[in-house]
Amino acid sequence: MAHIPVNPEEPGIRGLFRFRPETARPLNHLVEVLLRGPSTLERGERELIAAYVSNLNECRYCTSAHAAYAAAQLPEGMALVDQVRADADNAPIAPKLRALLRIAAAVQHDGRDVSGQMVAAARAEGADDTEIHDTVLIAAAFCMFNRYVDGLATALPQDPDFYTQRAKTIIESGYVGTLAATGIET
Amino acid sequence: MAHIPVNPEEPGIRGLFRFRPETARPLNHLVEVLLRGPSTLERGERELIAAYVSNLNECRYCTSAHAAYAAAQLPEGMALVDQVRADADNAPIAPKLRALLRIAAAVQHDGRDVSGQMVAAARAEGADDTEIHDTVLIAAAFCMFNRYVDGLATALPQDPDFYTQRAKTIIESGYVGTLAATGIET
Repeated sequence: MAHIPVNPEEPGIRGLFRFRPETARPLNHLVEVLLRGPSTLERGERELIAAYVSNLNECRYCTSAHAAYAAAQLPEGMALVDQVRADADNAPIAPKLRALLRIAAAVQHDGRDVSGQMVAAARAEGADDTEIHDTVLIAAAFCMFNRYVDGLATALPQDPDFYTQRAKTIIESGYVGTLAATGIET
Repeated sequence: MAHIPVNPEEPGIRGLFRFRPETARPLNHLVEVLLRGPSTLERGERELIAAYVSNLNECRYCTSAHAAYAAAQLPEGMALVDQVRADADNAPIAPKLRALLRIAAAVQHDGRDVSGQMVAAARAEGADDTEIHDTVLIAAAFCMFNRYVDGLATALPQDPDFYTQRAKTIIESGYVGTLAATGIET
């Protein structure tokens, strides 16, 4: 049971958004920009970074959710997401994305672990300043979201189709639009 | 030197806000609500939670900044901030705030470390649902901000008065207002 009273029909972060709409708004605007806004990284790649970091933090809700959102937006689907979660160093991904995932893993542990060498390696594979910036901030943001969801002991969804249904909604309406559709003004 | 090109006259997170205004906006709206919005926790107490978590993450910029903002808004000033940083269990603070700091410390390590017992202890000292929610989210958010600032290897300010000057600006104009004053529309 969650540490604060949330609607049992809104598992994970959704109940927290309902509980505190004032913080739900900027949180959703942040992920909208980071994961869906204009970028040279594909939406599926950005969701993959989010799922990867959530998996390192062992946050079940966020990992399942963003794995579903990544899978729905990557041509290789969930098979690739599972390979990245299991062994990012050997998963069949582009060298630039692999280098960015190494930066994300460093951020997940401690921001100071991101070395000049890691950044240079990402640049050598074609990453630009904004891609490096956004990778660091996506990884950092999921260190927040994971702690938020788990720190308040939110429940997991009962419905096994929850995440794939939610992926459809997010892809169709975005994070901000999905929040607005729940009646929380953005 | 920072991992991405930022204005050397804007140390810490400020250069990152300039580099990526699209993410600066929701990030500043988030801290505005959490640290300065309507709340039964004093602004000084909320800044103290932010400084405390930043200190646990050993993020020098965020610790110094939020320690200054807390000190400027607490009657006991920097002496109390220093005592909390050194030994929160024995610092002369109200029992409710001490219980909330214990929750914040758990979140800093891993969201799953927040126990029902910790939450019950905070409630026994008078904490309500929103205070518990906001404490978890402040602590989680600073796990993001600390990783963001350190993950991009931003520089520390050269001017020893930087943080106290900045505290005056934040207290006067708020986070969103201060960002707007730099020319980044919010």
